[in-house]
Amino acid sequence: MPPAANSSSGLSRLRRIESSRVFQTLVISIIILSALAIGAKTYELSPLANQTLTVLDFAITLFFLVEILFRFAAFPDKKRFFLDGWNLFDTLVVVGSLIPLENSDAVLLGRLLRVFRVLRLVSVVPELRFLINSLLKAIPRMGYIALLMFIIFYIYAAIGSLFFARVDEVLWGDVAISMLTLFRIATFEDWTDIMYVTMEPYPFSWIFYVTFIFLTAFVFLNMMIGVILEVMSEEQNAKQAQKAHDERDDITRQLHSVQAQLTALSKQISQNSEK
Amino acid sequence: MPPAANSSSGLSRLRRIESSRVFQTLVISIIILSALAIGAKTYELSPLANQTLTVLDFAITLFFLVEILFRFAAFPDKKRFFLDGWNLFDTLVVVGSLIPLENSDAVLLGRLLRVFRVLRLVSVVPELRFLINSLLKAIPRMGYIALLMFIIFYIYAAIGSLFFARVDEVLWGDVAISMLTLFRIATFEDWTDIMYVTMEPYPFSWIFYVTFIFLTAFVFLNMMIGVILEVMSEEQNAKQAQKAHDERDDITRQLHSVQAQLTALSKQISQNSEK
Amino acid sequence: MPPAANSSSGLSRLRRIESSRVFQTLVISIIILSALAIGAKTYELSPLANQTLTVLDFAITLFFLVEILFRFAAFPDKKRFFLDGWNLFDTLVVVGSLIPLENSDAVLLGRLLRVFRVLRLVSVVPELRFLINSLLKAIPRMGYIALLMFIIFYIYAAIGSLFFARVDEVLWGDVAISMLTLFRIATFEDWTDIMYVTMEPYPFSWIFYVTFIFLTAFVFLNMMIGVILEVMSEEQNAKQAQKAHDERDDITRQLHSVQAQLTALSKQISQNSEK
Amino acid sequence: MPPAANSSSGLSRLRRIESSRVFQTLVISIIILSALAIGAKTYELSPLANQTLTVLDFAITLFFLVEILFRFAAFPDKKRFFLDGWNLFDTLVVVGSLIPLENSDAVLLGRLLRVFRVLRLVSVVPELRFLINSLLKAIPRMGYIALLMFIIFYIYAAIGSLFFARVDEVLWGDVAISMLTLFRIATFEDWTDIMYVTMEPYPFSWIFYVTFIFLTAFVFLNMMIGVILEVMSEEQNAKQAQKAHDERDDITRQLHSVQAQLTALSKQISQNSEK
Repeated sequence: MPPAANSSSGLSRLRRIESSRVFQTLVISIIILSALAIGAKTYELSPLANQTLTVLDFAITLFFLVEILFRFAAFPDKKRFFLDGWNLFDTLVVVGSLIPLENSDAVLLGRLLRVFRVLRLVSVVPELRFLINSLLKAIPRMGYIALLMFIIFYIYAAIGSLFFARVDEVLWGDVAISMLTLFRIATFEDWTDIMYVTMEPYPFSWIFYVTFIFLTAFVFLNMMIGVILEVMSEEQNAKQAQKAHDERDDITRQLHSVQAQLTALSKQISQNSEK
Repeated sequence: MPPAANSSSGLSRLRRIESSRVFQTLVISIIILSALAIGAKTYELSPLANQTLTVLDFAITLFFLVEILFRFAAFPDKKRFFLDGWNLFDTLVVVGSLIPLENSDAVLLGRLLRVFRVLRLVSVVPELRFLINSLLKAIPRMGYIALLMFIIFYIYAAIGSLFFARVDEVLWGDVAISMLTLFRIATFEDWTDIMYVTMEPYPFSWIFYVTFIFLTAFVFLNMMIGVILEVMSEEQNAKQAQKAHDERDDITRQLHSVQAQLTALSKQISQNSEK
Repeated sequence: MPPAANSSSGLSRLRRIESSRVFQTLVISIIILSALAIGAKTYELSPLANQTLTVLDFAITLFFLVEILFRFAAFPDKKRFFLDGWNLFDTLVVVGSLIPLENSDAVLLGRLLRVFRVLRLVSVVPELRFLINSLLKAIPRMGYIALLMFIIFYIYAAIGSLFFARVDEVLWGDVAISMLTLFRIATFEDWTDIMYVTMEPYPFSWIFYVTFIFLTAFVFLNMMIGVILEVMSEEQNAKQAQKAHDERDDITRQLHSVQAQLTALSKQISQNSEK
Repeated sequence: MPPAANSSSGLSRLRRIESSRVFQTLVISIIILSALAIGAKTYELSPLANQTLTVLDFAITLFFLVEILFRFAAFPDKKRFFLDGWNLFDTLVVVGSLIPLENSDAVLLGRLLRVFRVLRLVSVVPELRFLINSLLKAIPRMGYIALLMFIIFYIYAAIGSLFFARVDEVLWGDVAISMLTLFRIATFEDWTDIMYVTMEPYPFSWIFYVTFIFLTAFVFLNMMIGVILEVMSEEQNAKQAQKAHDERDDITRQLHSVQAQLTALSKQISQNSEK
C-alpha cells in the first residue's frame, strides 16, 4: 500500500473520530468543567481546593492543546486551517493560556484568557456557531444607522460639553465623558438628576435632554423596524419565489400538454384531409 | 342491564355534569373566592374575621378535594388521568393543602401552597390553558439564544469578579453574585452607580459596561426578531399553502375539462374520417 | 309648505352649518382656547388675569352649551343622539361644568371636569376619533393575556406579602400594596433596592424577583408578538384574498374562452361531417 | 467657440471635479478633522495647542467657504440651488461660522455653530442623506398619534398640577413643569419616588400614575405596530403586485398561444371542408 493512501486513510480515521458524538461530548464536557473551575476560583477556597483547581487547570490546558493539535492533524488542507475564524480563535485561546505568567499583573491576564475558554463552547456547538454567524450577518445592516447614531451622540456631547462643563465637570468635562453621560441618558439611567442640575443655570436645558431622548429613541425604533423588514422581505422573497415557481410549473406543464394535444389534433385533421 | 353498561352510562352522566356550564362557573367562583381569602389574610384582621377565613379555607379545601375526586371519577381512562399535566398539577395543589401543618415554618409552606390554588384558574379556564400551552411552545425556540445569553453573562461575570471583586465585594464578590449584578445592569437599574465606582481604579471599565449592554440588547433584539419571523413564516406557510392549493385546484380543474374536450374532439374527428 | 317639510329643510340647513369647515374650525379653536385657559390657571396670576379667566371660562361653558344644543337640534333622530358614545361624553362634560360649585372641594371637582373638555378635541377631530376607535378595538385582543398577567401579579403579590411583610411593611404590607410594588418592579424602577433588603433575611429571594421579571417580560413580549401577528394576518388575508381573486378571475376568463372556442370547433367538425 | 459653450464646458468640468471620488473624500476628511477640532477644544489644552486649533479652525472655515462657492459654481441652475434643503443648510452653517464674534456670549454661539458642521457629514455622505430622508418620511405617519400623546400629556399635566401643586411645587408647579415630570414618568425614571410623595395626602394617587403609564405604553405600542404594519404592507404591495403580474403574464401568454392554435385549427378544418 503506498504511503499517500495510508496517510489519507489515517486522516479519514482521524476525522471520523473528530466528528464522532463521543469526542464532541467529551470536548463540551471539558469546556463546561473549565467554566466551572473559572467560576470556582472567584470564591474563597481552602488551600487544598486551590491546589486541586491549579492541577485541574493544568490538565484542562493540556487537554485543549492535545485537542487542537488533533483537530489540526484531522484537517485535510493544513494551510487553510487558520483561515477559519473559529479555528484561529481556538488556537489563540489555547496558546494564550500556555504562556507561563509569574508576576501578579500577568496572573490577571492569564486568568482573563482562561475566561475566554468558555467562548469555545460557541465554536464547538454547531447551533451556537450558526447563531453567532447569523448575528454577525446582522451587523452590516446596522452600519450607517450606527454611524448616524454616533454623529448624533458626538454633536450632543460637543454641545453638552460646551455649555455644561462648568456646571458639572465630572459628567460633562470633555467630549468623551459627555458621550458616556449621553449613553447613560439614552438608557434613562437617573437622567433627570443630571437635567435638574443643569436646569438651574440654563432653565431651558430640558430641551437638550428631551430632544436627545426623542432622537435616539426614534432612530433606534426605525433601525429596529428596518432590520425586521429587511430580514422578513429577504426570507419571503426566497420562499415566495420558490412557491410561485412550483405553482406556475404545474399549470405550465398542463398547458404544454394541452398544446401537445392540439398539435396532435391538427396533424390528425391534416391526415384526414389528405385521405 | 349489565353492570358495565350501567357504569358507562353513570360515567357519561358524570362527564355531562363536569362539562356543564353551571359546574364550570361554580368551580371558577370557588377559585376566585379562594384567591380573595388568600388576599384577605395579608391584611390585619379581627379575630372573628380570622376564624371565618379558617373555616372558609377548610370549606374550600374540601370543595377542591371533592371536585378533583369527581373529575377523576368522570375521567374515562383512570390510568391516564395523571399523564395530563393540568390534572397532576391540580391534584398536587389539592393534596398539598390537605396536609395538616402545625409549627410556624410549616404554616408558611401551607399558605404558599394555598397561593398556588389561584393558578388552578389557568387549568380550569380553557382560554387561559390554551394561552399557557402556546407560551410553553415558544420556549424551545428561545433555547439556544438563552444558552448564548447565559454564556455571555457567565463570561462577563467571571471577568467582573476577577477585576472588581476587590473594589466592591457585595456586587462582584463571586461569579454568582456578579451574574445577579449583571442582570441588574441589563435592566439599566442604577448601572452607572456601579460603573462610576469601578471607574476609579480602572478608568477604562466603562468599556466593560457599555459592551455588555450592547451585547445583551443586540442578542435580545435578534432573539425577538427571530421569534417574530419564525411564528410569522409558520403561519403564512400554512395559510399560503392552503390558498395556493385552492387556486391551483380551480385552474387545474378547468384545464382538465379543456383536455377532456380535446380528447372528445379527437375522437369525433377520428369517427368522421372513418365515415 | 307643510310644517314637516319646513322642519326637515331647517334640519338639513342646520346640518349643513354643523358640518361646515368654518363651524368645525371654530369649535376646535374654542376647545384649544379652553385648554390654554386650563393651563393658564395652574400658574400664579394677577387678580385681573384671574378675573379674565373666570369670564372666559363662563363664555366657553356657554359656547359649549350652545354648541351641544345646536348639534342636538341638527341630529336627525333625536332618540338615538345619546346612543353615540361621543355625543354622550360631550354632553356629560358640558353639563358637568354647568353645575355651580361653591365650597373648595367642589371647586377642585369643577376644575377637573373642565380638564376633560380637552378630550373633546378627540371627539371633534375625525382622525383622532378614528384613532381612538382603532385603539379600543385592540383591547379585547389583549383580554386573556391581561387576565393571565393579573393572575401572575396576584400570585407573586400574595407570596411577596406572605414572606416580606415583616421585612418591609410599606412595600409588602398587604396584597394590594404588594401589587403596586410589583408593578414598580416590572418597570425596573429601583427594583434592586427592594431586592437587596429582602435578600438579607432570605438570601434566595432574588429568585422571586428574577423569575417575576422574566415571566412578565416573556408574557408581555408574547402578547406584543401576538397582536402584531393578528393585525398583520387580518390585513394580509383581506388583501391577498382580493388579489388572488382578481388573478384567478383573469385566467378563468381566458380558459372559458378557450372552452368556448373548443365547443365551436366541435360544432364545426360536426357540420363538416354532416355535409 | 461661443462663450455659452465655453461656460457650459467649464461648468461640466466643475461638476466632474465636484462629483469625483478624490474631491468627496477630501471634503469628508475636512469635516472629520473639523469634528475632531471641536472635540479637542473641550479638553484643557496648552496655549500652543489652543493657537493651533484657532489657526486650524480658520483654515477649515476658509475651506468650507471655498467648497460651498465651488459647489454653487458647479450647480447648473443657480436660482434653484437654495431650494435644496441640504444646500441651504450647508450655506447657513458656513456663513454662520464666518461672522466674527468677540464678546463671551457670542463665542459660545460661534462654537455652537461650529458643532453643526459635523452634521455636514450627513449632507455629504449619500447613504446618510438617504437615511435621513427616509426617517423624515416616517414622521407624518406618526402625526396624529403624536397629537393624541400630547393631549394625554396635557390632560394628565393639568390634573397633576391641579392636585399635586401644593404637595411638590418643583415637580407639579404649573402645567409646563408637570408635562416634563410626566415625560420623566413615561421613561420610568424614579417615578415611584414621585408617587410615594403624593400618595401621602392622596392615598389613591397611584391610579393617576399607573393609568398614565398604561396609556402611554399602550398608545406607544400601537403606534409602533401601526408603523411596522404600514411600512410592511407598502413594500409587500409593491413587490407582490410586480410578482403577480409576472406570473399572470406568463400563463396568459401560454393561453394566448393555445387560443391561436385553436383558431388555426378552426381555419384548417374550414379549408378541409371546402376541399
